[in-house]
Order: sequence, then C-alpha cells, then structure tokens
Amino acid sequence: MGTALNTDLYELTMAQSFLEQGKTGPAVFSLFCRTLPRERNFLISCGLSVLIQKLEAFRFGNDDLGYLAGLGTFSDEFLDWLRRYRFRGSLSAVPEGTVVFQNEPLVQIEGSLPEVQILETLVLNTIMYQTMAASKAARIVGVARNKPVIDFGFRRAHMTEAGVLAARAAYIAGFFATSNLEAGKQSGIPVAGTMAHSYIMVFPREDDAFTAFSSSFPDKSIFLIDTFDTLAGAEKIVSLARSGVSVTGVRIDSGDIGTLATAVRKILDKNGLEDIKIFASSNVDEYAIAEWLGAGVPIDSFGVGTRFITSSDAPYLDIVYKLVEYEGRPMFKTSPGKATFPFKRQIVRHAKGGRMTHDEVVRMDSPENTPGLVTTILRRGAGTGSPPSVDEIRALATAQIASLPAGFMTLEKREYPVRIGN
Amino acid sequence: MGTALNTDLYELTMAQSFLEQGKTGPAVFSLFCRTLPRERNFLISCGLSVLIQKLEAFRFGNDDLGYLAGLGTFSDEFLDWLRRYRFRGSLSAVPEGTVVFQNEPLVQIEGSLPEVQILETLVLNTIMYQTMAASKAARIVGVARNKPVIDFGFRRAHMTEAGVLAARAAYIAGFFATSNLEAGKQSGIPVAGTMAHSYIMVFPREDDAFTAFSSSFPDKSIFLIDTFDTLAGAEKIVSLARSGVSVTGVRIDSGDIGTLATAVRKILDKNGLEDIKIFASSNVDEYAIAEWLGAGVPIDSFGVGTRFITSSDAPYLDIVYKLVEYEGRPMFKTSPGKATFPFKRQIVRHAKGGRMTHDEVVRMDSPENTPGLVTTILRRGAGTGSPPSVDEIRALATAQIASLPAGFMTLEKREYPVRIGN
Repeated sequence: MGTALNTDLYELTMAQSFLEQGKTGPAVFSLFCRTLPRERNFLISCGLSVLIQKLEAFRFGNDDLGYLAGLGTFSDEFLDWLRRYRFRGSLSAVPEGTVVFQNEPLVQIEGSLPEVQILETLVLNTIMYQTMAASKAARIVGVARNKPVIDFGFRRAHMTEAGVLAARAAYIAGFFATSNLEAGKQSGIPVAGTMAHSYIMVFPREDDAFTAFSSSFPDKSIFLIDTFDTLAGAEKIVSLARSGVSVTGVRIDSGDIGTLATAVRKILDKNGLEDIKIFASSNVDEYAIAEWLGAGVPIDSFGVGTRFITSSDAPYLDIVYKLVEYEGRPMFKTSPGKATFPFKRQIVRHAKGGRMTHDEVVRMDSPENTPGLVTTILRRGAGTGSPPSVDEIRALATAQIASLPAGFMTLEKREYPVRIGN
Repeated sequence: MGTALNTDLYELTMAQSFLEQGKTGPAVFSLFCRTLPRERNFLISCGLSVLIQKLEAFRFGNDDLGYLAGLGTFSDEFLDWLRRYRFRGSLSAVPEGTVVFQNEPLVQIEGSLPEVQILETLVLNTIMYQTMAASKAARIVGVARNKPVIDFGFRRAHMTEAGVLAARAAYIAGFFATSNLEAGKQSGIPVAGTMAHSYIMVFPREDDAFTAFSSSFPDKSIFLIDTFDTLAGAEKIVSLARSGVSVTGVRIDSGDIGTLATAVRKILDKNGLEDIKIFASSNVDEYAIAEWLGAGVPIDSFGVGTRFITSSDAPYLDIVYKLVEYEGRPMFKTSPGKATFPFKRQIVRHAKGGRMTHDEVVRMDSPENTPGLVTTILRRGAGTGSPPSVDEIRALATAQIASLPAGFMTLEKREYPVRIGN
C-alpha cells in the first residue's frame, strides 16, 4: 500500500519537468512560519516523530501508479522514477517540544530537487496541525495556574487522525490527560473521563444514576450534576457523600459556569465536603479560564474540547515549505508579503538569567559547527539517533516554556525578537 | 487491527455500568446541530458513506483489549463484551448532499443502550468535519458566479484524513476539482494544479522557467507569474504566447490581487490574448471572491486553500449526539442552552414554486410512513441499499442548493424556519 498520493498534483508535474530539464541538483527546502497568529506569542514545535514515520512510509504503490498513469499527464520514465522513489536525503529540525517563533526553520530537508519538492504537501500537512495544537495547548496551560487541564476534543477534531495527534500534542504542551483512548494507547498518555448526560437520563431519578455509577466505579466517581438543575444536583451529591459514597468531584457542563461553580462550592463546603473537586467543561478555552480564575471562581480542573482541538481562534498557521538553496546558490522570491530568506539555517538562542532574550537565524556553516537548536535527524535517508519518548519531549517543552521571557504566557500580545543573519 | 479505540474513555465506562445495571433496553441517539454558525445559512450533510465504513470496521482488536485491561478500570466480562462487539443496530439518516438546518437529525442510531452509546465519539468526529467542509465549500461556490473553484487546501488541513475527505466534501458541494491526488484516486474527483514558486526560482530567468514548463507540458500550461514582479511576469507570458507556446492561463498568488488581476488582464487583452484565463490563489475565501467579483475584477477561476479546508471563519459546528428515546420513553435534558427534543424524528420539508419555505421536525411514526428526508440506511447492522456515487451525491447537493430560499446563498445572515413538532 502506497501513501505517497497524499500530495498535490503540482508536486508531481513539477518533479517530472525538473527531471526532464536536468534540474536534479542538490536543493534545500525550509519549513517555517512567516508570521505568528495575533493570538499566539510563541509556538511549540510538534510533529517531527510522525513526519519521520510518514517519510519512511512515503511510497507509490501499484494502485497509485495505475491511478497516475490514467491521468494521462505523466511519462512512463517518470512513473518508473516514482515507483523507485525512497527518500534518501537529509533532514534537520528543531526537536519536538522546542519553543519557536516567526521565520525560524522547524524542518529543513535536503536532497535532489525533485526528491525534496514532492515532499512539500506531506511536510506542511504533518507539521502544521501538530505544532498548532501544541501551541494552543501551551497557551491554555499558561493561564490555568497549575490546575489540571484535560483534552476532551476528539469528537470535534477534524477527523480521527487529527484527534489522536492533538491529544499527544496537548500532553507534550502540559495537559494532564486526554479522553482519547487511541492516543492513550499509541503514545502512553494518561486517559480520563467522567460520564455523559445520557447516563443520568436513563435512570428514573438523578440520584439513582449517581448511586448506580458509584456502585460500578467506587473509586473513580466524578459526577455530572447539570443535567436538570445544577444546584439541586449538588445537593444530591451531598446526600450521596453522606451515605458513604466516595465522591472525587463534580462536573458542570452548561449554564453560567462561574456563578454555578461558586454556588456549588458553597453547598459542598457548608456540608464539610471541601475535598470534592469542581470540574468545568463546555466551551472552555484560555479566555474562559483566565476570566474565571481572575475572578476567583473555585474551579479545580478544566476539560477543554472543541476550541482547543480546532485551535478555533487561530485554526491555521502561516506556515510554508520554501526552496532556500539550489546547487549552493541562494533562492528567494520577492512576492509582496511573501519574501523568503535564502540558505539552510541554524537558530541561535540567547538568554540571560535563565530567560530567553532573542534569537538569531544564521546561515548554517559547512561543516555545521555553530551550536544551536537545529540538529540533523536523517542523513541519506537514515536516522542519526533514537527518537525521544513523549515524556522526554514533554519535559523539554516544560523547560522551554519556563525560559520564555516574562509575559509570553499571558493572553497579551508579545513580539519576540528574531534577527535574520545574512 | 481494531479501530474502536477511536473513542473517549467515558463511553466505555458508561457502557460497562449500563451492562452492570441492566440498562440494555432499546435506545435512540440523534446527531444534530443545535445552532448554525453565524457565518452559515445552511449546512450540506456529508460523511455518511465514511461513517458506514467506519461502523463496519469498528472492532476491538487484541491489542486494544490488552491496552484497556491494563488501565485497571474494566471487568473481564466487559472486555469480553467489547471483544464480541459488532454494531447490529439500525441507522437512519438524511442522504449525503442534503441541505439541513438547526435541530434537524443528520443521523439517528438505534440499538441497545451500551451498543449505541459507545459510538458517540466516532459518529460526531466522522460527520462534523465533512459536513462543515461541504457547507463551507457550498458557501464559496455560492458567491463565485459559476467560475470554477478548486481545492488547494491539503497542505493546511488538520492532517491527511481531513484533507482527503475535505476534497470529496468540496466536490460534492460544487467545487470543480482538487489538487489532492489521494482524493482524486479514492473518490474519482477531477484533479488540477499549476506550479510553485520553487519551479520558477531554479531557472536562471523567469522566462526560462516558463519555456521549460511548456516544453514538459505543452497542453496544460497555467503559469505562475508573481514570483518576482507580477506585471513583468505578464509581459513575459505575452512574449511566450507570441512565440507560439499554448498558454491556458496565469496564476497570481500574492499582493493586491484585485489590482494586479485588472492590470494583467489589460496587458493580455492589449496583446490580443483575451483567451488566457486569470487564476487567483492566496488567502482566497468567499469574502475575497465576493469583493473581487462585486468590483468587477477579471478573475476567471479561484484556488481556495487554507480558509476553506479549516473552515476558518467557523472551524467547528455545535453538533451533538444525544439520547432522545430509551425503552420507548422520551429522553431530554433541561441544561440551559442545551435543551434537547425527545424521540426519533423525521424531517418534512415544505416548498412553494420550487423553493423550500420551512421544515417540520416531527416524531417518527411507527411504522415509519411519514415521507421525509430521513431514510433507513442500516437495519440490524446491514445495509438496506447500495450507496450513491460521489457524482450522484453532488447532483443531489446541486439540486438542493438550487431550491434554497432566495438570499440563502449570499453572505448575509438568513434564518430558515424549522418547527419542532411534539
């Protein structure tokens, strides 16, 4: 089974023409964001492990070649070139979990021009979403004041692949857990969940549902209390706890959550149930969390779904894969608003007192002896080391975020200085 | 290989508890949008064929069961129930390509309560994105005045699965073609593409690149003219055409496209090249198209990418999968802003003079003899007919869109009357 049709038609027409025109010299493409969204102060690079897997699987199968032949566009020689295609070039990148900014290369790919041209769509598609999801997650964690944030977004992700990889990206960026079982299995991420309104509704009374659930799961009881009336639900939880049932927490999923959480907290505390946690879901994002916590609303944990997993305030990045070097010559275009910087590059980060101050994006030496964030991951198509675990990536992201300049983890816009060297 | 871990943890904890508590009676869940985004006047239902495929593949493999056992949450009895799980219930739905509105059931699933509960995440994830993509595409086509619109979004889709299915959804909604080869192969959609800036840049001069491309593809030449200077690029195209090269069109991908397209048109026309088409890409969406065409900008075709494929002005739908009936009894909750309507339902559409006027969402009779948009697709887990082809679905969508009330295909907000019967 081939996977290499996950690309745009023009990558292949260009590649055929490059081969016909003898344009097969060494080329370097660079993946970077031209600008950051107004709503982001930094990005967390994410998706490199998945990209390496996809590059290794990037093959044109017989069914793919048959389809392409049927288009009537491609020569037999070119179809044979596709049949034999294996990526044998080099790939350098910043490690997953690294903080990056505008104009900084996340991934740079080197090889013969047609060999690296046809990877454009795959590389952009693989890196953009995961980096966007990790960056959105980091922003949410940044305002949550160390209260656990859990990914509930799978159902509204743009299909399953995005949902599973967003859960991984969010964990890397500091989320506590995910509801997504496939992500839990694939990446070893902690999984969590409570109950839906449908559970409550099939019992004759709400407290019957609570009792039933606690008898099935005596140790893991977070009760959804807003199906009919949130405050009445909280009173039923008080009775339940008094009857000896272990109650870990309550979840509020509708209404004016700030007001309701405050009232529920009072009901619980008045009855000596200070240990029961309040969990908020429903349209939760960094803006809601900042508002609640700024107003002292007693919420202990957040379930974030749709707005995280679609990165709804910034659902794409201005990310591109641009030819920067061909046969050793600098490549750049001058299109308005889309100017690019030539040459393979290294990112040199400067810090003071443990906080980053500014970056320089400098031309990569040959031999590559300027220390910086970019390292070689594949050389002539083969890996240069073993990939880090998800927990190692998460630890890197945590350390990177801790070294951001003051104010970058707030919702106010900050611009980080990135200097482009000659 | 199982695929059934593409779900949320709580679906399985609830299912285990339902089984333990004897809550295994017949249940009906309904998938619908509570409200439409402010930026959408209607939706095009899309994703049913993929949902049927995913339901058929919904199995817990040994590796999945091993993972679940390791969580320490589930009983051996329940894991065995999962091992034997096959969907054997019924599914009714509106056909793909149907215009739908708020509170109208796109999909309704019936079976024993735990059997249909655990499908929630899958059903939402599968239908939301495809319906959203088709709806965004229809809105774009609606303002494009019959000029061809082409999907260029794959690279910025939220991973490959979304990209491939968005191309299908867009074609159903009236797009002319896609750049996405995998979608072309899977769904038989026309594919199209031009060239990237990288192609131009590796040649010594821009006109060398144009000549080289036309020698590789004499019949399919759309030239990208904005790499350095768009108007100078247009002059080079004039020379190229005069030298006898067949030029189908030019593409402009940056700058002030309205002004540039007008100037390029003048250059071409002045030289007797009225037949050369102008193709616009870069940040194209329905708002840009409406502005250009409203101002008389001479663009012949549009490449839409990022803003289409992420549905960036409305990147999610307020879509839910709600229990509406259990053991023949109505199920509803009263959470503020999240009230639901009980019972399995039919959609009855009323029209006058070929234009739809209002819908009624009525309780489904038993036997089901109210004619309407909802039909049975699966009965006891088996299909009741052969699925329509993509072209048949596209034809249905075209006819449906043609019968929308006046004004619904504009960018002004319209509210369609949907009455909920008792």
